[in-house]
Amino acid sequence: MLQGFTVPLTPQGNSALTPPPPWHYSSDCMAIEYWADPAAVAALLPPGMVPDTASMGRCFLWFLDWQFTGSNDELTDPARYQYREAFILAEARFEGMAVNYCPFIFVDNDAALARGWIQGFPKKLGSIFQTRSFAAPSPAAAPLATGSRFGASVSAHGERIATARIQLEEAIADPTTVFRRPTTIRRYFPRLTLTDRDKPPVNELTLSLTDNLTIVDLWAGSAELQLPEVRGEEMHTLAPLKVGRGYRFSMAYSVTDLQILKDYTA
Amino acid sequence: MLQGFTVPLTPQGNSALTPPPPWHYSSDCMAIEYWADPAAVAALLPPGMVPDTASMGRCFLWFLDWQFTGSNDELTDPARYQYREAFILAEARFEGMAVNYCPFIFVDNDAALARGWIQGFPKKLGSIFQTRSFAAPSPAAAPLATGSRFGASVSAHGERIATARIQLEEAIADPTTVFRRPTTIRRYFPRLTLTDRDKPPVNELTLSLTDNLTIVDLWAGSAELQLPEVRGEEMHTLAPLKVGRGYRFSMAYSVTDLQILKDYTA
Amino acid sequence: MLQGFTVPLTPQGNSALTPPPPWHYSSDCMAIEYWADPAAVAALLPPGMVPDTASMGRCFLWFLDWQFTGSNDELTDPARYQYREAFILAEARFEGMAVNYCPFIFVDNDAALARGWIQGFPKKLGSIFQTRSFAAPSPAAAPLATGSRFGASVSAHGERIATARIQLEEAIADPTTVFRRPTTIRRYFPRLTLTDRDKPPVNELTLSLTDNLTIVDLWAGSAELQLPEVRGEEMHTLAPLKVGRGYRFSMAYSVTDLQILKDYTA
Amino acid sequence: MLQGFTVPLTPQGNSALTPPPPWHYSSDCMAIEYWADPAAVAALLPPGMVPDTASMGRCFLWFLDWQFTGSNDELTDPARYQYREAFILAEARFEGMAVNYCPFIFVDNDAALARGWIQGFPKKLGSIFQTRSFAAPSPAAAPLATGSRFGASVSAHGERIATARIQLEEAIADPTTVFRRPTTIRRYFPRLTLTDRDKPPVNELTLSLTDNLTIVDLWAGSAELQLPEVRGEEMHTLAPLKVGRGYRFSMAYSVTDLQILKDYTA
Repeated sequence: MLQGFTVPLTPQGNSALTPPPPWHYSSDCMAIEYWADPAAVAALLPPGMVPDTASMGRCFLWFLDWQFTGSNDELTDPARYQYREAFILAEARFEGMAVNYCPFIFVDNDAALARGWIQGFPKKLGSIFQTRSFAAPSPAAAPLATGSRFGASVSAHGERIATARIQLEEAIADPTTVFRRPTTIRRYFPRLTLTDRDKPPVNELTLSLTDNLTIVDLWAGSAELQLPEVRGEEMHTLAPLKVGRGYRFSMAYSVTDLQILKDYTA
Repeated sequence: MLQGFTVPLTPQGNSALTPPPPWHYSSDCMAIEYWADPAAVAALLPPGMVPDTASMGRCFLWFLDWQFTGSNDELTDPARYQYREAFILAEARFEGMAVNYCPFIFVDNDAALARGWIQGFPKKLGSIFQTRSFAAPSPAAAPLATGSRFGASVSAHGERIATARIQLEEAIADPTTVFRRPTTIRRYFPRLTLTDRDKPPVNELTLSLTDNLTIVDLWAGSAELQLPEVRGEEMHTLAPLKVGRGYRFSMAYSVTDLQILKDYTA
Repeated sequence: MLQGFTVPLTPQGNSALTPPPPWHYSSDCMAIEYWADPAAVAALLPPGMVPDTASMGRCFLWFLDWQFTGSNDELTDPARYQYREAFILAEARFEGMAVNYCPFIFVDNDAALARGWIQGFPKKLGSIFQTRSFAAPSPAAAPLATGSRFGASVSAHGERIATARIQLEEAIADPTTVFRRPTTIRRYFPRLTLTDRDKPPVNELTLSLTDNLTIVDLWAGSAELQLPEVRGEEMHTLAPLKVGRGYRFSMAYSVTDLQILKDYTA
Repeated sequence: MLQGFTVPLTPQGNSALTPPPPWHYSSDCMAIEYWADPAAVAALLPPGMVPDTASMGRCFLWFLDWQFTGSNDELTDPARYQYREAFILAEARFEGMAVNYCPFIFVDNDAALARGWIQGFPKKLGSIFQTRSFAAPSPAAAPLATGSRFGASVSAHGERIATARIQLEEAIADPTTVFRRPTTIRRYFPRLTLTDRDKPPVNELTLSLTDNLTIVDLWAGSAELQLPEVRGEEMHTLAPLKVGRGYRFSMAYSVTDLQILKDYTA
């Protein structure tokens, strides 16, 4: 009997790209608030999703250092399961609900790539880095304190897609004053068969479900952001017209389910 | 209007993980014939696929240096589209037809990973290397000639999964005397929704269609092969009980379609 | 006027592998105490260094997630300057002084490789990972608390050289009860010229000088450790005969100078 | 007795970054002729080296896919010894001799990095790719034939430093009509000791000695080249003012010695 939540399916299920849910995550995050061309945001939205006119093109670029575990101490195998990620969340509306939509996301690990595709995150491989905050005091420590500077970047195939820097100014007591929209994504798996190529078997708008979502140690400050044009990518269509605040925080949640908002194949 | 053969879907379709078919490939290959435990091969076969009793567990481990292009000169962007691959083909039978089945495959590029999943190749990320044959004479050149030695290896997450070495003995005029079985794979995309998690939306047995398949410069020789046990992988269940010949050759084909042999969701 | 602390030397000095000292470092560390074959330790010691007979082959394998900065906010360019490292420290004596000697070290960044060679650390490239401790509570967070489990590994060229796991048991108030020996290294740069190949221009025993050395948040617990044999490496000659305690802590220091203990070229 | 041509020095000498000479190399190469600002070239030349006024800033940017072997079949361990490289050669004069000088070079392997430093090549880590020419006919094969297009790129720390494309027009019978200058480099190893930091122990102008240099299958054609400005690099100071021809060829040589042209420490 073959087992595995994903391929490769095997007798013991040990080769699968990712263990089955529940998937537990904890991370350190940098997020930069900014405004892109509202028409560029609108052009990336899937059917049924509309621009949030109040947002005026508001987006966040996130960088995340993630630790993952399933139910078998996967966190003690960091070579296989620890990873880094960067994505854009663009503000939009779906059936009246204020949401974020994720049009671009990069990750440096295949287990995370697989879990992403299964939820609808359009993950590609990238190389992602962010300044970390270390406990031992030093000019290199970047503590969570006023004046600390953090940098972050994402590259794909050796080309820099985004570079950000922030400088901390103040702690924010209540994270929900900053982050409160749920995240929607496009779950999509194509068909190669020539006769039905225009009928992808999986084509849905989904809502990311984050159990026990916790945000701690939120700091805000000033920010810089560049999204240069790179051949073979369209993320620069969401380049910043104006940059807002930068945030640094830690976040955790678990994934056990997925909500299908709309099935485009129906 | 959003475009792209895969996610991310964008207005211009330039961000998609892979350009749409036709997909053209040319490669240098090493393949090692060997025999695994027939019960281990049988345990990996999908429903409807049966062991080829005449094969006695015969497998080939392949290593491939690939160049890919679509219709827009992608071969001139090697940072994005050139890649390396390793996989096992195990001999089996489906409805009386002598076939190969691919239970394990590793690749070092996300465009190739995506194309693989779409066809049914259960690709994971790996680091793959093979000795190359260079034109300029040198002790380092490894020419296609009697006595030349080639090595190859595949690692995942920093652990060596397979190591092979071959030494060339003779050119083989007719490649079809060695390679003649079509390749079958399991196309599979899971469902995360809790209520239907046991009903994957895509679950098919497929047949890889290789237009204009060409094999040239085939040499055969002696071979060594190790598939050590690695935590988090089950490929070592197909470790060699006996090693046959080693082959070195070049291969090209194009992909424009996929044949569905069996739909397990029906 | 060409500038740079290292090559490449350029008009502005911006291309050099590393900025000039002072070099500031902060890190999260895992270290596993163990005992290797005392004869194997002795066989790796440079001239003038003798085994510490009381140590009975005692070594520590360290894993470090490092953040580096020079004087120009290098910590905000983590893609270039953040790195991971693993090394062995073996206990020995030099002119009566109880010291550590570093025979093997791996790092994943070229600036760190260069700084290491300049001090005497015999750095090679590797892929290093350790479980991190995150602030947001989750099964994936690995907090600094009794019962937390951490894993770490180092690989080179796709082969696993060492794998370790620890489980925290208790905080240690005074780090100097565990870590108190200074570190010695062999600074060595070979000569290629055929006529003088046996006369390396740089061949010294040096003492690593760590200004403002700080160790905080030290925890101890149980440990497991494997150092498998790998072709092309000799680190497995220091494989554990007995494993002691595992430690998890944070450490910072600065480097501005180097002490030459012995010049072997004299 | 400790052994090894480089660190780490060990009882068997197996851990050293590189085996001792002779070092044998065979490669596939792309080289783009171009003209940089002559003042920028002059600003990079070491003491005693002067601009070649006839050259008017002429440079070549090379991309190389290398296979290396020492005396122990290292070519069959490609994960450890196969590598890719990119460098600039700028035309200059030393004591009346027409030479090339190498101010910038990137490589993706630590054994090659070490061998480079020992000769004087100022190697840093990079990610390098070039289109390959495969034997099996396909739109992806890039044969050595009129009209074939090749691309190449080098990135460091996720930033693209150079991108090139060429299109083959004609075979060149005699490679010495294109490549005939010997290559000079700056062999340099710094001192960290505070009191003597301005006295590097190794500081020489050297001449690369290439035994049995062979160039075969030389083709020439049109070329494009970009060297964008990247923070933390100065290679863009040699960006092209004018681009000449592009070349594709194979090259082999062995290294057994090094000539010291000038000792700057004397």
